[in-house]
Amino acid sequence: MKVVCPGSYDPVTVGHIDIVARAAALFDEVVVAVVHNPAKTGHFPVDERIALIRAGLAEDECTAGADNIAIDDVAGGLLVDYCRDIGASAVLKGLRSGTDFAYELPMALMNRHLTDLETLFVPGDPRFEHVSSSLIREVHALGGDISGLVPAAVLEAMDAR
Amino acid sequence: MKVVCPGSYDPVTVGHIDIVARAAALFDEVVVAVVHNPAKTGHFPVDERIALIRAGLAEDECTAGADNIAIDDVAGGLLVDYCRDIGASAVLKGLRSGTDFAYELPMALMNRHLTDLETLFVPGDPRFEHVSSSLIREVHALGGDISGLVPAAVLEAMDAR
Amino acid sequence: MKVVCPGSYDPVTVGHIDIVARAAALFDEVVVAVVHNPAKTGHFPVDERIALIRAGLAEDECTAGADNIAIDDVAGGLLVDYCRDIGASAVLKGLRSGTDFAYELPMALMNRHLTDLETLFVPGDPRFEHVSSSLIREVHALGGDISGLVPAAVLEAMDAR
Amino acid sequence: MKVVCPGSYDPVTVGHIDIVARAAALFDEVVVAVVHNPAKTGHFPVDERIALIRAGLAEDECTAGADNIAIDDVAGGLLVDYCRDIGASAVLKGLRSGTDFAYELPMALMNRHLTDLETLFVPGDPRFEHVSSSLIREVHALGGDISGLVPAAVLEAMDAR
Amino acid sequence: MKVVCPGSYDPVTVGHIDIVARAAALFDEVVVAVVHNPAKTGHFPVDERIALIRAGLAEDECTAGADNIAIDDVAGGLLVDYCRDIGASAVLKGLRSGTDFAYELPMALMNRHLTDLETLFVPGDPRFEHVSSSLIREVHALGGDISGLVPAAVLEAMDAR
Amino acid sequence: MKVVCPGSYDPVTVGHIDIVARAAALFDEVVVAVVHNPAKTGHFPVDERIALIRAGLAEDECTAGADNIAIDDVAGGLLVDYCRDIGASAVLKGLRSGTDFAYELPMALMNRHLTDLETLFVPGDPRFEHVSSSLIREVHALGGDISGLVPAAVLEAMDAR
Repeated sequence: MKVVCPGSYDPVTVGHIDIVARAAALFDEVVVAVVHNPAKTGHFPVDERIALIRAGLAEDECTAGADNIAIDDVAGGLLVDYCRDIGASAVLKGLRSGTDFAYELPMALMNRHLTDLETLFVPGDPRFEHVSSSLIREVHALGGDISGLVPAAVLEAMDAR
Repeated sequence: MKVVCPGSYDPVTVGHIDIVARAAALFDEVVVAVVHNPAKTGHFPVDERIALIRAGLAEDECTAGADNIAIDDVAGGLLVDYCRDIGASAVLKGLRSGTDFAYELPMALMNRHLTDLETLFVPGDPRFEHVSSSLIREVHALGGDISGLVPAAVLEAMDAR
Repeated sequence: MKVVCPGSYDPVTVGHIDIVARAAALFDEVVVAVVHNPAKTGHFPVDERIALIRAGLAEDECTAGADNIAIDDVAGGLLVDYCRDIGASAVLKGLRSGTDFAYELPMALMNRHLTDLETLFVPGDPRFEHVSSSLIREVHALGGDISGLVPAAVLEAMDAR
Repeated sequence: MKVVCPGSYDPVTVGHIDIVARAAALFDEVVVAVVHNPAKTGHFPVDERIALIRAGLAEDECTAGADNIAIDDVAGGLLVDYCRDIGASAVLKGLRSGTDFAYELPMALMNRHLTDLETLFVPGDPRFEHVSSSLIREVHALGGDISGLVPAAVLEAMDAR
Repeated sequence: MKVVCPGSYDPVTVGHIDIVARAAALFDEVVVAVVHNPAKTGHFPVDERIALIRAGLAEDECTAGADNIAIDDVAGGLLVDYCRDIGASAVLKGLRSGTDFAYELPMALMNRHLTDLETLFVPGDPRFEHVSSSLIREVHALGGDISGLVPAAVLEAMDAR
Repeated sequence: MKVVCPGSYDPVTVGHIDIVARAAALFDEVVVAVVHNPAKTGHFPVDERIALIRAGLAEDECTAGADNIAIDDVAGGLLVDYCRDIGASAVLKGLRSGTDFAYELPMALMNRHLTDLETLFVPGDPRFEHVSSSLIREVHALGGDISGLVPAAVLEAMDAR
């Protein structure tokens, strides 16, 4: 069974790495899909986001040796079409709270409506409950120490900007 | 009893039509109020939104023959003033989840504070839980098939743009 | 339009009276339905609950003169059957929070499934957000002062027990 | 990958069948685990609950031919021990709302704490949002028509009691 | 400033100890109040619950040396009266989720209504999100390993029963 | 104990004043911290927001005489650094709903992660549940009467713009 972990990963965090590691332990294949709108710029360009995910997976002991994790770039199309094209049978998302679920539910139902694509949710590790890309960017911009919340490669890249 | 169903209806969906149909079965008069800020542009101009609501109501078997549904344009004023002016005693809104309610509650309480205008909530039909104007626009822009989620007239208008 | 405000009303509180008062201002007829299971005993017997609702409505200036409020006893049947029998087109319930909504939603959807009976929700007055029959009973049992949270007649009846 | 769908299934509903059908389409093996406390009696005895699940799966066109669904009885032990014993790598649960998630989260985290057992959540089909065993029992006891909400075999068994 | 941390503490968990430790670091005096109904029996008798709290506080490095933590027994009265009697100006409670808050809110508002007693909420440590007395009791009864989730003294006492 | 009440206060409302008043009754020192991004403009310039908070505190009978309330300007740094610099041991925030809590939780956990700074939440007074700076600005812009929802000085300043 192949699952897709979609996100903007701008940048990847230890919370993302944890979800991917757990997915890789459960499923045959895991695709980390960097979904983005080609017309918009994020914090990091997509190429760099992908390189940072790769570096982050290499740093983590659970994912370093894994050979069932791929990283891909999904530019400006429907996620359901992408999943059908690569033969994925489900989307996998980490969930932090009931409010998160309420936010994700319409998109999950829409995806089922469009192509019967299923969405599976896995509870995020509570240790990373405060870790999101946007909060990381905000705290770093204000001079806060984000080490431990992102892979070392991300920390370096953020400091370099 | 006259109720107002406010919204931006940009564009109207089958979820909206369902709420209006059920309202028309319960109340003496129902006004579908297209609330908009004249200084901002939406996806469809207000005139077209109104035409599409009219077309959508004509397509639906529950609302096609109804003579107690009006459509109106509320530009840049307070909804409570509009309701007082037309003699409406309540706002009626569809509700999909507890998170929806938490979002709507402050406005409902503010409207009671301002003019004692009541807000009534009716649970949306679960079949349309994933149907919102914004998600419809997003899915359509990415090439997804939204037939069945909007009136045929809306589908045509979206394809034409 | 006739609506039913169902509850166990064991005992009626100022929050209940507020919802009934607002319903009576909006709708043609309001039925306060004391729903109970004949096989179970509550705090007050049903007869007394009804007498206390009557007293509470008489005490309140908004409901004292109202001639469109009835009180009835619904023993051990389906609420939807009761509503059909008396010609009510909707249930009306006060709602305090998103969690309340999540709790009420399945029953509202079930009632639509069974007989197309609609449920309308109206936000409770925030002044009464802490007022529920069960909390009132608990606080009173521990010697707390509940005056102002229940009609005077209820206070008297609770003290008398 | 083997997943376990735990529940009391007292009785099984069309919502349960839907989750099992979708699980069987995604995963290699699905075990419907009837979890119960031997010291307590439910509505149906465990043997009958299992027979009704079997009948319900046979009635449904998605599960009738499936050869990757097993039904089992988990009496009075930890679910994590059961899953380890049968080699299941995850629990799968349907989720209806954010409030559901908040209720399930502590148990899911506890299971990870105990044996690293993962819990996957899949959004329930909105058509069955009002369908739970307890509400089914309540509505049936009051004479309501629950056909369409439970397998035909369950309807028959409930009428027979 | 003196705060009260009320609960049934049946038994005390590492989550409780964490809240008390943090409270003791912030406030002048902290009272751990074991609230119970003399007419009901819990899992542990109140005397033993208090002894276990004492042992738990002694085990933890943050609370072992603290001289501003008291433990008390509140039997069958209103918490607001107890707080007034001992001169506490606020109740302090740990909060795990939005659903928790919705549950606690009516009691907090009632306490303000009764005597202006304030309730302060502090987010529980996410590491203990799955740790509640009831889940601990359930897991232990089924033979699960709860070491690390309760003080060592509690583990011993539970094993001894 | 010194606490900080952070916010954009653009403008201050009676809900804010209520939280500050209650904080001043509980804690030794309260700092109302106007947090803003120097690169962005709000509705009122920061100087005026501070002047309006001062005026609002002077108008309110609970805070008029208080000598333990300070107002400060926090421009573009981390709140945790500010709190450490002024020796504050906790952030204090009003909370209106479970959804509010879900929104605030990640930042509260991040602040603990960064410097062990605690966040205390106090339930907002339900009378002000609909009072937020953004809704006030919106209603006023559309000609609604916001008297009673903001200090008189704020009303004057908003009318003057």
